[in-house]
Amino acid sequence: MQKKGELVSFRPDIKVVDCTLRDGGLVNGFHFSDEFTKALYQTNLAAGVDYMEFGYKAAREMFDPSAFGKWKFCSDEDIYAIVGDNDTSLKISVMADVGRTNFKRDIVERSNSPIDMVRVATYIHTIPSALEIVEHCKKMGYETTINIMAVSKANDSDLSDALELIGRSCVDIIYIVDSYGSLYPEQMRRLANMYLECADKYGKSIGVHAHNNQQLAFANTIETLTMGVSYLDSTVNSMGRGAGNCPTELLLGFLKNPKYHITPLLRFIENHIDPLKEEGIVWGYDIPFLLTGRLNQHPRDAIQFTAEGRKDYADFYQYLHDKDSF
Amino acid sequence: MQKKGELVSFRPDIKVVDCTLRDGGLVNGFHFSDEFTKALYQTNLAAGVDYMEFGYKAAREMFDPSAFGKWKFCSDEDIYAIVGDNDTSLKISVMADVGRTNFKRDIVERSNSPIDMVRVATYIHTIPSALEIVEHCKKMGYETTINIMAVSKANDSDLSDALELIGRSCVDIIYIVDSYGSLYPEQMRRLANMYLECADKYGKSIGVHAHNNQQLAFANTIETLTMGVSYLDSTVNSMGRGAGNCPTELLLGFLKNPKYHITPLLRFIENHIDPLKEEGIVWGYDIPFLLTGRLNQHPRDAIQFTAEGRKDYADFYQYLHDKDSF
Repeated sequence: MQKKGELVSFRPDIKVVDCTLRDGGLVNGFHFSDEFTKALYQTNLAAGVDYMEFGYKAAREMFDPSAFGKWKFCSDEDIYAIVGDNDTSLKISVMADVGRTNFKRDIVERSNSPIDMVRVATYIHTIPSALEIVEHCKKMGYETTINIMAVSKANDSDLSDALELIGRSCVDIIYIVDSYGSLYPEQMRRLANMYLECADKYGKSIGVHAHNNQQLAFANTIETLTMGVSYLDSTVNSMGRGAGNCPTELLLGFLKNPKYHITPLLRFIENHIDPLKEEGIVWGYDIPFLLTGRLNQHPRDAIQFTAEGRKDYADFYQYLHDKDSF
Repeated sequence: MQKKGELVSFRPDIKVVDCTLRDGGLVNGFHFSDEFTKALYQTNLAAGVDYMEFGYKAAREMFDPSAFGKWKFCSDEDIYAIVGDNDTSLKISVMADVGRTNFKRDIVERSNSPIDMVRVATYIHTIPSALEIVEHCKKMGYETTINIMAVSKANDSDLSDALELIGRSCVDIIYIVDSYGSLYPEQMRRLANMYLECADKYGKSIGVHAHNNQQLAFANTIETLTMGVSYLDSTVNSMGRGAGNCPTELLLGFLKNPKYHITPLLRFIENHIDPLKEEGIVWGYDIPFLLTGRLNQHPRDAIQFTAEGRKDYADFYQYLHDKDSF
């Protein structure tokens, strides 16, 4: 397999995408204080991070706004209140889920919005709907991505067809997403190879979004980046649903571009992440998440197991096994 | 680079070496109860683990026996008290550190001992002393390994000379040891290539012992195993000094040999590891260990930082930086 770049150099095409608010919001219902959000924005600026994802563009008529913090909805006004004119090199992104967004109403001309990039999360069977959103966003002037979730459940032939379809679209970036944290580096490299072939053919870039169920989020990110993947998702201290994500502090420690700085992140962890953990917000590698990851399952059962304070791992494993078989 | 085996098959040359007592002993001064040790032995048996390392063969005249639990010294009597005749497929190993063992007195004929394998830990500049221990142990009938520690600090030419020297000796297995958890998969694969060349030339096997400072212990273990490394060190739930080790529960989840079973491990974690953590014994990935790993330093400063309950990560990083430069 090909390799781009060496351990001592850096590739200018690499972009780090901070998903702390978006994936971390799945842990705390998006109930971040403005102080936290502003400090994270300043941290990303100082650390040299390339994109900061604020959250979802969810439709207010589909989700109760009183049940979620504001970053479930990411109104332009709320983002402006944090970033002002954002006259910086840090770009702003939001995610739109297929079927959960009123994009025609809520995603307006880029020139009237603080947002630079819209990322569209889709399962493999809803790609035509994802492309509809992408086309709208491109027309409105945004950078766009398609994030094919749960790729570990897709078969090669469907995935190959999906990549062709996406390749021929106007989208800028295609993401490999290991939603369940079930893929090993060997499998991630094989996927990266497949996605990069499509990228070469159609002039796209490839991104990676990894989960840490098997403590492989960082390894899978750097292994695919070494092959040519350039958009790298991470969250501060892994904050994210279940086992969490590729930790930004590890990723920036690996990247050699002198624009990246780890110290602002360390201060943010000290001042803002450790207090969240002390409040009792829980994420990160743990046995229940390893088990759903190993079995290539959605982490929802593990999240519930953890929330109930259960420790009967062996019984839980048996339950997960039985659920999937026969 | 070559690859041995595929993701769906298994290699019969693979051996899992449980280091929970030995590396975990560095966390709690080897103060494990006999109940814990017996349960771990039964767990390893039921899980299909190949070797169980009990601890160090340290010389009693060099270390105060009242300051350490019994597995710092691993007398044959103490091991017999746990395993009886050990008429099982689980082999017993101990570690001897160069300069800290009275091997001529304490390592007796294998036929009079419960021990099957002696592993000799050495820095690259003390290999002749390590070989002296190995020769004694081979004469006494044991399987032997040489574990070259801190290989991330060695230069290629010294390492190449060291491997030649070890290759020509009577040792059975040579270990790649990432003592500081500082090596990336790309570097581990390069090392594995170098060690495997020596193994092919001299008829040795290669082992891997990884630390988790950068959440890469599991990834580095499976990446090198895929290339042909066959002795795989791990500990239950990562228990080990600082950031800990490759977690056995992840490793057995990856291995395809039907003799390995994860459920006994899950029960052991539930009944014996979780209680240790609740007592306040601390190990595993955390920011201070990431920082020493990233800077290729011994974890001792991070262990002290953690023991003092400090959280000023950014200042600590500055301190580690300054210590090493100018």
